[in-house]
Order: sequence, then structure tokens, then C-alpha cells
Amino acid sequence: MLGNSFGRMFRVTACGESYGDALMCIVDGVPAGMELSDAEIQQELDKRRPGQTPLDSPRMETDQVKIVSGLLEGKTTGAPVGMIIYNIDRHDIHVQQYRDVKDLIRPGHAEYTFFVKYGQYADWCGAGRASGRETCMRVAAGALAKKILAQQGIKILGYTKSCMGVESREMPFEEIEAGRHKNMIICPDQEAAEKMIARVMEIKDEGDTAGGVVEVIVRGVPAGLGEPVFDKLSASLAHAVMSVGAVKGLEFGAGFGVANMKGSECNDIPYLKDGKVRFKTNNAGGMLGGISNGEDIVLRAAVKPTPTVSVDQQTVDMEKMEEATLGAITRRDPTLLSRIIPVIESMTAIALVDHLMMWAGYDSQQKFEHKW
Amino acid sequence: MLGNSFGRMFRVTACGESYGDALMCIVDGVPAGMELSDAEIQQELDKRRPGQTPLDSPRMETDQVKIVSGLLEGKTTGAPVGMIIYNIDRHDIHVQQYRDVKDLIRPGHAEYTFFVKYGQYADWCGAGRASGRETCMRVAAGALAKKILAQQGIKILGYTKSCMGVESREMPFEEIEAGRHKNMIICPDQEAAEKMIARVMEIKDEGDTAGGVVEVIVRGVPAGLGEPVFDKLSASLAHAVMSVGAVKGLEFGAGFGVANMKGSECNDIPYLKDGKVRFKTNNAGGMLGGISNGEDIVLRAAVKPTPTVSVDQQTVDMEKMEEATLGAITRRDPTLLSRIIPVIESMTAIALVDHLMMWAGYDSQQKFEHKW
Amino acid sequence: MLGNSFGRMFRVTACGESYGDALMCIVDGVPAGMELSDAEIQQELDKRRPGQTPLDSPRMETDQVKIVSGLLEGKTTGAPVGMIIYNIDRHDIHVQQYRDVKDLIRPGHAEYTFFVKYGQYADWCGAGRASGRETCMRVAAGALAKKILAQQGIKILGYTKSCMGVESREMPFEEIEAGRHKNMIICPDQEAAEKMIARVMEIKDEGDTAGGVVEVIVRGVPAGLGEPVFDKLSASLAHAVMSVGAVKGLEFGAGFGVANMKGSECNDIPYLKDGKVRFKTNNAGGMLGGISNGEDIVLRAAVKPTPTVSVDQQTVDMEKMEEATLGAITRRDPTLLSRIIPVIESMTAIALVDHLMMWAGYDSQQKFEHKW
Amino acid sequence: MLGNSFGRMFRVTACGESYGDALMCIVDGVPAGMELSDAEIQQELDKRRPGQTPLDSPRMETDQVKIVSGLLEGKTTGAPVGMIIYNIDRHDIHVQQYRDVKDLIRPGHAEYTFFVKYGQYADWCGAGRASGRETCMRVAAGALAKKILAQQGIKILGYTKSCMGVESREMPFEEIEAGRHKNMIICPDQEAAEKMIARVMEIKDEGDTAGGVVEVIVRGVPAGLGEPVFDKLSASLAHAVMSVGAVKGLEFGAGFGVANMKGSECNDIPYLKDGKVRFKTNNAGGMLGGISNGEDIVLRAAVKPTPTVSVDQQTVDMEKMEEATLGAITRRDPTLLSRIIPVIESMTAIALVDHLMMWAGYDSQQKFEHKW
Repeated sequence: MLGNSFGRMFRVTACGESYGDALMCIVDGVPAGMELSDAEIQQELDKRRPGQTPLDSPRMETDQVKIVSGLLEGKTTGAPVGMIIYNIDRHDIHVQQYRDVKDLIRPGHAEYTFFVKYGQYADWCGAGRASGRETCMRVAAGALAKKILAQQGIKILGYTKSCMGVESREMPFEEIEAGRHKNMIICPDQEAAEKMIARVMEIKDEGDTAGGVVEVIVRGVPAGLGEPVFDKLSASLAHAVMSVGAVKGLEFGAGFGVANMKGSECNDIPYLKDGKVRFKTNNAGGMLGGISNGEDIVLRAAVKPTPTVSVDQQTVDMEKMEEATLGAITRRDPTLLSRIIPVIESMTAIALVDHLMMWAGYDSQQKFEHKW
Repeated sequence: MLGNSFGRMFRVTACGESYGDALMCIVDGVPAGMELSDAEIQQELDKRRPGQTPLDSPRMETDQVKIVSGLLEGKTTGAPVGMIIYNIDRHDIHVQQYRDVKDLIRPGHAEYTFFVKYGQYADWCGAGRASGRETCMRVAAGALAKKILAQQGIKILGYTKSCMGVESREMPFEEIEAGRHKNMIICPDQEAAEKMIARVMEIKDEGDTAGGVVEVIVRGVPAGLGEPVFDKLSASLAHAVMSVGAVKGLEFGAGFGVANMKGSECNDIPYLKDGKVRFKTNNAGGMLGGISNGEDIVLRAAVKPTPTVSVDQQTVDMEKMEEATLGAITRRDPTLLSRIIPVIESMTAIALVDHLMMWAGYDSQQKFEHKW
Repeated sequence: MLGNSFGRMFRVTACGESYGDALMCIVDGVPAGMELSDAEIQQELDKRRPGQTPLDSPRMETDQVKIVSGLLEGKTTGAPVGMIIYNIDRHDIHVQQYRDVKDLIRPGHAEYTFFVKYGQYADWCGAGRASGRETCMRVAAGALAKKILAQQGIKILGYTKSCMGVESREMPFEEIEAGRHKNMIICPDQEAAEKMIARVMEIKDEGDTAGGVVEVIVRGVPAGLGEPVFDKLSASLAHAVMSVGAVKGLEFGAGFGVANMKGSECNDIPYLKDGKVRFKTNNAGGMLGGISNGEDIVLRAAVKPTPTVSVDQQTVDMEKMEEATLGAITRRDPTLLSRIIPVIESMTAIALVDHLMMWAGYDSQQKFEHKW
Repeated sequence: MLGNSFGRMFRVTACGESYGDALMCIVDGVPAGMELSDAEIQQELDKRRPGQTPLDSPRMETDQVKIVSGLLEGKTTGAPVGMIIYNIDRHDIHVQQYRDVKDLIRPGHAEYTFFVKYGQYADWCGAGRASGRETCMRVAAGALAKKILAQQGIKILGYTKSCMGVESREMPFEEIEAGRHKNMIICPDQEAAEKMIARVMEIKDEGDTAGGVVEVIVRGVPAGLGEPVFDKLSASLAHAVMSVGAVKGLEFGAGFGVANMKGSECNDIPYLKDGKVRFKTNNAGGMLGGISNGEDIVLRAAVKPTPTVSVDQQTVDMEKMEEATLGAITRRDPTLLSRIIPVIESMTAIALVDHLMMWAGYDSQQKFEHKW
């Protein structure tokens, strides 16, 4: 396996499985002199922690994080920040559940392709590294990234934009910020939220699960971020967000809407406001040619329904190579929406910090003058 | 600037601007012993060459490619393949056109953010490296990647899925392959193609441009390709395709459709066919957990309308810092669709070959025996 | 800080400081299906553990390693292997010792440049990440790399080649292997070892420390390993070994001896032995053009004396910006030789595995059939 | 093949063979706004151009470089700088010479391992990419890197330190600078130079070749450059310089001399000079813990004699798999010393610029304040 690192100048490397001893991550590229505590990271982790609402999996993980390196007397030293979370809720009864069905393909689950790739050695217990459990380390690293962004005045806001046909209406940034945490599906439009929750609970009662769309808005990104051609900010964000298991689509600004637009409709018209260039609309989603233009970065990710359902599903027994039926096997989230929001926010933050550091690094002469 | 390389085990590095002397690319990681000629690369380049139909820009570039390294007596040697294309259609009259409006922001164009990033030094001539002209080297490198894939029995097929509200109907792979090149918008559904073309020509007559959706289908990818967590095949494809300037959205399989699906609807049900695991549907778009599952990889990219239009647009003069009006400045494509298809196919191919080589590299020797 | 990862296809990422809570490392690219246990890693770690002989620092660290991920039922799963070692010997008395002298530059020690780089935020406690303590994670990852190499029949052998003017005589591989661990300075020539140890003990009694040269021989490397031009195997080995703090010089085969050789003397003459190409001499140190030629890889690293001495040294107080005197501050190794050998072996192993995986990855399928 | 790129934030990618059409390189990460011309690059290239003195190969290559991208009106734009050099001296007579002996291993030459790696497809003509000809692109990219360094007040000085037993005496930087180009072996000690040249001419007359040591001094590097642990500046320099084909050893400062030093002798003692920390000696070669300390960076590289000699050598015919004799086959350099100096300087410069850009990128808060 490769693929357990993300970023070049701000690099997150992680390990750990669903039912392993612990998950760890190492974040390299953290500036020195930043205050940091376990508690701050924990606060973000608590947003994706399971078992908090009826929309989450009942798995009882406290996700207690411990920073083991990179700090001295409460401040970062420039050394890589290492974090560890021990798995606690992995009792025999659950292990046995997984062992019992380990030869049956779980429809829609990444576990199958891991088996294809690693053969008999693939981790069958709770899907091993193919489990969404790995995302807690994305959130831990993301907490660090968000803090770096916050120091530059950059704010990231994720929320449920739509779920099973119910849409959150258009709202200003401030209202989204104020309202999104007032319900368990993290939707700022309270009326829509109510309908979404009702719909998900209904589906949950059928033993089924629900998909949706998450929108992330980033405010305060300076114009000029992103590397031309292959490493556009948009390309890095796409890489980062599409690396989250359940995401099947991604769009910026007008997104798929551009397919039905004329150039004159799609182009965002620049004007001057307080002596600065701004744009009248934001079809571009804050990026032109993959480089930030100073407007909000707006992205939407399509999140598939949790593949684990308790409806009986036809499947294949990989050992016997014969068709079989899979019943519900385990604990699951009725919808991934509320818990995936901090994950998508985190990947967005990590990609942004990576670009921030690349950019700050090399394109201006002046910085050399003032540093040495 | 960074960002002019893509890939780790199959690495494409490119340079060149719209009105510079030449575009070059260096492809590292090309296997030894492969027959290769300028003519084969040229064939692919000709697919995105301008000036061929009324839907293209009238710029007259022959895009004549020359392989200058990596070959001996018609076969690759393992050394990096270097290619060069000289720009020929860059007459004073066009340079002057660009010089005249170099201080005016072109709405919707990447040129603006390059100015923000590189300041007064940014290349104003035909948008420099921000121009779509750079994509010819993506296609040259993509031709090489496609050839490597073809040798493994992997075929890539791109076509216009929709344009300004007109949709190409669902068709089997073979029909798409047979029919897509029968019209100038590269759409296999001839009836839809006719409507699309009519619509674009109408918009062109208004001095405006049109958006659309491109679908790419990859057949023959073995199950097991892609690296878990951050370097999923889906994440790499997203990175690759979203790095193409005009792409504003991307989805795999059911894509944004998953937002309204239940788990039991979204999950593709496995069954046995001729002793192999196959899936009854392909909502996953050929990847589970970002690793290929043996089904067709299906992706769709939202392509925005060409930002350059000949309708007058409000804008800002960056030098005088005052509002201004921009008329049509130059040659352009009425729609990017037909010319962007080989570009998106190429990025797909490059990302696939990169993964193929990573994968083949490290996890077991048996895989070669049983897969290739 | 960056720089805490090494390798592309076999990637080691580490964190942890001298007096932090713990050191961790994550090894990505580990093949699935390999038996692995804490005990095997521990065995290698015990070779660099302090406090074992009078030549080592008396710091009492047990360096107990725990694998927390990447294993299922004793076998690797393909997932990244995470390891953790908690620091235990970090009592207040030692912390205070460091605090007392934290503004004084320690001559010859990396700590100073960390202060220059990270300013007031640099970790002053036991030199933080600038301490040789970080090398225990190199050895942990190296243990894994060595195991992968061993499975391919590749063996790595490091020993003290010279120390303070005493040279270990030329000996065949088997004798080096059999004799090197018979003394505490890890030198296969027992007579030389005795003299070296006597010399170091003498120097230790003066409160001083001793330098030396470590030789590493790698047997069994197949011809063809290494990437041409910038990523030659020799370049990667140089990168890997020179990244070990105390190494100030590196040479392969005849090394600096080539400066006084004619071409006809330096060239290793090929001949046939049992139908295979071999070379009569090994001035090349097993690599031609940076690619392995099938002979033993032979490298020598110059290891400087431990900078911490208990002789009074003139220095500068960075806070007061005035000259000062530094007495002995802490525990130290009289010579780094015996403890650095497993570190240099480990870096050699890691670089080799990385190349093995790159190579196996992309240039032909036949190689697996005929090489492995 | 991989390995044709070097650097992360300043990345050089090259291609081209000894007898191919052309050599190209693409330099990414070049700051915008720098004046640059073909002539400046040419000036550096002319230093390694063959056929200039009796110590060089008589091959007549003009090495005429052309910058094809990255420039507008004489200034860099931030876009990658592409350069091309066409091979001109590749007449049939020389190709035939290579064809005649293509199955014979050339003792000491990289060509052999390329054959092992790429098999029958390897380029046999003038050794293809295994030829030292590729180094002209290192020098072209190095010219760019040197210019960036010069703008920061950093100067790189390479010269022949020793050759076949003759040593250049210790001299101050200014004298080295003034005197090194007064003779054809680039040695500042004119007496030593005379002896070296006489010795090489004698060896040349025997049909043989000579080795030597090159020293490079870098003045003006600010303290703080280099990334801890695996990407130390020393490790990157080692990677960079050891990637040059003929280099078999490398040392910094006291280098292999440390093996016989006590800590108290080896440590460079800090003191205050004009309110700044300086060091009384420079055994460290300008780096502590792999990070620059503000003193001159001093490195020495052992350069092997040209492997091609016109003395008959025993060898093996790889086609017939029988022993054979190889006579002189072609043009060659009697010693590589004078022509390799600009190559080693260039690799040093490239590694330094790469670190400069990484460093400037991420470790200080202030830069963000002043840039945005």
C-alpha cells in the first residue's frame, strides 16, 4: 500500500485500522511557535465522533487524541506533530461478527477491492484500513490545518446542502455559520433540516441508509493561491476531497450548471470595490484557472449512502465462489452526512495550507530581503 | 510556478506558452521496447488541433510534434521521451491585439489570477501559460499513456454527454465507439449531436460560447488499481481531470445522483459470471474505496463555456484601476467540447498508467503472472 | 519543518524528540503477507539501545517498540505499519540540566542550527528533534526493510572499519559476519578492535570522544537497481546515509582512492563465471552509473566524534549575546560507532527497498519471472 | 526509467541522449521577474563544452542553448523555463564505431548496467542516456540556479583540489576565485596546476585517463537552510552531487578526517564577531545537523578517471557470452576534472535553491503578514 500521505509542504501521514490497536498521524510542515493542545484537536474530533445522535453509528469510540511530539511547553517547535488515538470499542463480539462474514462481499463497500488488491492478507476485521474509521486522523490533522488558516483569517464552513431530495435554501455566510449546528444533520436551513432528519429516520427504520450533498465555503482565501497547470488549487482540492471514501462527485461554484450556460452568463464580471477587484457573481467558485481569485471558495461533494444496510442483499462468497445472501452485519451510520462534514472540511483545510506554504515559498523576491 | 509535473511512476513534465517559441514535454517512466513514432503522437494531437471545424478556434497551428529523445531505431529505450511542438501562428497582428488589452481583466479567464500571482511579470500574450494551448502537451503525453494502456487491453473513450440542455442517450460501449466521431461535436447519438451543433452555432452567431458535459469510459482496467486513503484512483483521476482549466465539476458512476439514493439502491450487487465477480449495476463508476473493481470506469466532467466571447463585457483596467469595457479580443472556440475530449481522455490515461506502474511495483510478484 | 519522510515507494515517516512523550514512525509500502512481530523489530532496536557497554551513553531507555497498525494475526495486511516507542528516562534532573544551559551554544551540535531556524520556539530539551534519539525510528523502519531484503536473499553488514587511526584489516564477507559482534565496537578484526576500544576508553577518560569510519557491505543485490541520472542508487544511498547526523563523508568502492588512479587501474574488468558476468575487482563498489552491477555494494561513512564532551569549551550565550564557557552538560556516547552502525545499515536498507519497489514496478514484466 | 527530475520547489527535469536529436530541460519554480537570456546560460555551458583544451574530448559540440519558454521580453514570467540543445556532432562514422562494439561491455562504464536494466532495448549509441553528455542540461539548469543564488549574494566556487597525487595548497577564497581559471585544469595553485597538467598529459600519452578531487566552496549561505532529519541540506547536496556519474566519494568540511579526531578537536568553537555568531574553524563544512550555520559550505567530490581508455582491456561479449578484448573505441576526456567542475557546481546550486525555496516557504509567520 502506498497513499497514506497527503501534501508536499504541509504533509499528513496516517496509519491505523478500524479494529487495530491505534490510529496515528504525523503532520510535517507545522510552523514553530503556534499554541496547540490536545483539547483543541479533540474539539474537532468530537464533531465526527460516533454515537452522539440517532443519525450516527452506535460504536462507542471516545476518539481521545494525544499529541506525542512537536510541542514544548504548549507551543509547536517546528518538529512534526505526532498524534495517536487508541481504539477502545473492539470487543470480541464485534470481531466475531466480522469473522463470520469475512468471505462475503459487502456490496458497495471498499473492503472488496482491498481483498482483490491484497488477497488473503487483507484485513477483514471491520474493513481494516478500508473503514471510514481512518478519517478520524484526517480530522485531527485538519484541526491543525484549520488553526493555521484561522491565523491568516481564513474560515471553513461545511454543511449539508441536500439530502434525499430536500435542499437547504441559499443563505448568507453568516447565517450558515450561525445556524448549521442547531440540528443533528448540520444544515443551516432549520426547516429543511427537519425534513431531512425525518426522511433519514424513516429510511433508517427500513434498515436502509441515505445519501446527500455537502457544501463547503472557504472565506478569506487571498487571491493567488494554487499552482498553474497540474497542481491547480482546484485540482488539489479535488484530490483531497475525492480521497474521502464516500464522495462520488465534486463541483466548484456553478459546477455542473456550467454545462447549460453561455460564456456571457458564466463569466463572473469584475468590478472595483473599495479599490479592490471583486466579482459580481461567483460561478467560478473562487478560482480561475485553478488559482484563487479572492472570492469565497465554494465546493460541493456528493456523498453516497452508507453501504452497510440491514436489508438482505445478494452477494458472492469469495471463498466458495458461489452466490450468497448477506444480512445486516454490524453497526453503521444511517447517513454519513453529519460525520463526513468535518472530514471534508479537514481535507479542504489541509490542501489549502499545503498551497499556502508552497506559494509563500517561492514567488516573491521581497520575502528574501525581509527574512535574512 | 510549480505544478508543471504530474505523476510519480509515470511522470509528465511540460512547459510552453500560447505565444512562446515552443511547447515541450518530458515523459519519464516509459517502458523500454515499445514501438513509437511521431506519427502516432500526431494522430492524437490532430484530434485537438484547432481550425478544423466551425466549432473550433480559427487559430492555425499545425501542432507538428517531434520526439527528440528516448527512442532508438523506432523503439523506446527506457530513457525519458522528450517532445517538442513549435508555435507557428503568432503573427504581430495577434500579439498587438493582446498588447492593446493587456491591462483589462478578461472575465472568466485564468489570465487574471496569473496576474495576481506573478504581478507585472505575468505573460499577457495570449494568456501565456494560462492559455488552453498548454493542453497540446497533455495530449502528446496522453498518446503515449494510451498506447501503454492499449497494450494491457485498456481502452479509453470520451464523448460529449450533454451540451446546453441536449443529452446524448444511454448507449452501449461499442455503439459509442462506432458513432462518436461521425459528427463534429463528438457525440455518438447522432440526433442529439445535430441538436447540439445547431444550438452551439446559434450561440456562436450571438458572439457567445457554450458549455457541456464530457463522459469518459475506460474499459478493461483490472480490479485492484489505486492506492488506499489519500491516493485512491478516484482521487488521482479527480486531480488529473480537474487540472484541466475549463472543468468545474467531476463525478464517477451515479455521481451526484447518489445524493438521492438509499444504500440498497446505490450498492452494486455482485454476482458470478464465468467464474468471475461482476456487478449488476455500476453506480460506483468502476471504483470502490477508490480502487478499481473490474467494471468500466465512468467519469463525467462539467466543461464551462469558453470565457472569451465577442459580446461586450464590463471589466476592470488593472493599470488604471478603473472600470472599463472589453470587446471581443481574439480568436476562440465557440465550445471547448470537441477539443477538450482528447485532453480529458489523456489526463485519465496518464493517471491510470501512473497507478498501473505504482501497483505493479510493490505488492506481490504473483500479480504479474495472473494479471498481465 | 519538513524532511521527516524518506522514500517514494517504500516511505518512512517519523516524529518524536529526545525528551518528548514518544517517537512514532509510519512505514508505507510494506507488502502484504509478511510475518512480522514486535520482537523482530525489537531485536534490531536493541543493537542501538544505549547503556549497554562502557562505549555507550548511560541514558536508560528500553526503546520498547509496539506495532500498532498494519498487522492482522501476525501478518502484514498491506496497510501502513505504525510503530511507537515511549520515552521513559526523562527525569526532572535531566530536563533541568538542559534548561540551565539552554542559551549556550553546544559546539559541534545540531541544536544550534535548529535555534537559528526555529528561533525561540526550538526545542532545547535534550536537543529535541536534533538529538540522535530520532535514529531509533530509523532502526525500527530499517528492521522492516532488512526483512524485505532478506526475503530476496539480500544481506546487509555494517562494522567499524577504522577508529582514531586503527584500521580493521581486509577480511572476507563471511569472516566479517562471524566476527563483528564479538566485541563492543563491532569490528571483525579482533586485534584491531582491542586497540580501538583501548583508544576510545583513554579518550573517554579525558572527557573526550572519538570518531571513526563505518563500512557497510550489501551482498545479493541484483544487477539493475537504481534509476538513471538524478535518482541513481548511489545518489539515494548518499542521501539516506548522509541524512544521519554525524556522518561527514561517504564513499563507494575505491572511493577517494579513485583520485589517484588511472582509468585502466580503476576499471573493474568483467569476466564470465558460471555463465554470468562478474567483475575481477570492485572499485565501483557495486554500482556503475549509479545502477547496481551485481557485485557487493560497499560504502564507507565517516562518523564524527560525539560533539558533547566534558572538557570545558568556549562558546556563546545566545540570549545575552556574549561569550561564555560550557562545561559538560549531560550523558553522552564516548564514540557513536557501535550505536550508529545499525542506523547506517537501516538507511542503506530503506533506500534499497525503495529502489527495489520502484524498479520492480515499471519497466517490464519479465524481470519478475527471471529475477525474483 | 525514472529519475530524470531533481528538486521539489525548484525542479529540474531533463531528457536527451549522447547521439539523440536533442537534449531538453524544463526548470519549474523559477521566480518571475528575473532577467534571463540564452547568452547567460551559454556562458556557463561553455565551461563544460568539449574540444577546448588538450584535456577535453575532441567531440565537436557547440552546445548552443535556446530558451523556448518561460520568458517574455527578456524576463521570466513564473512559467517553467524550457531549454533545448541540439546534438550536431553525430556523424555516421561515430555511430558505426559504437555499433561495431555494442555487444562488448565497456569496463567501468555505466552503459553496462543500462543494458542489464533495459535489456536489448538499451541505447548503445554513445551510451545513450548513460553518457556524460546529459550533464550539459545540469549545467544549463545550474546556470539559472546560480543566478538566483547570486541575487541573494551567494557565490559558488569549484576547482580541482587534487589530481593523481598532486594537491592544490590551502588558499583564501578570493585567491581561489582569482586564480582558478588561469589554467586548463581549473586549479588556483598555479604550481600545482602545472604539475597536474603535466601528469595528465603523460597519462594521456599512455592512452590512459586520470582521476582527481574537486572542491566546491559556497559563500554567503544564510544560517538556517536545510530540513531536519531526512532532508538535511547535507543529504540533499550528497544526493545532488553523487548523482553525477563519475563521483565516487563526497565529504563536507573535515570529511573523512573526523575519523581520527577527538570531539574537542572536531567541534568548531563559536564566538562573536560584529555581533554575530561565527565559528573559529570550519570542520563542519558549514552545516550542523545538516542545517547551514552561516560559514562557507565546503564539499569535496572524488572524481574517477574516464572509463574509456585506449589501452586494450579484457571484457565480455554480451551477445556471444564469451570473453573478448576491447580496444579504444572512441573520443574521450583524458581527465573529467575541468569539465565536471561546472556540473558539480550546478548540482550544488540546484540543491541550494531548492532548499532556499522550501525554507522561505513555511517557517515564519511574518512573511504572511507582509505578503498578503
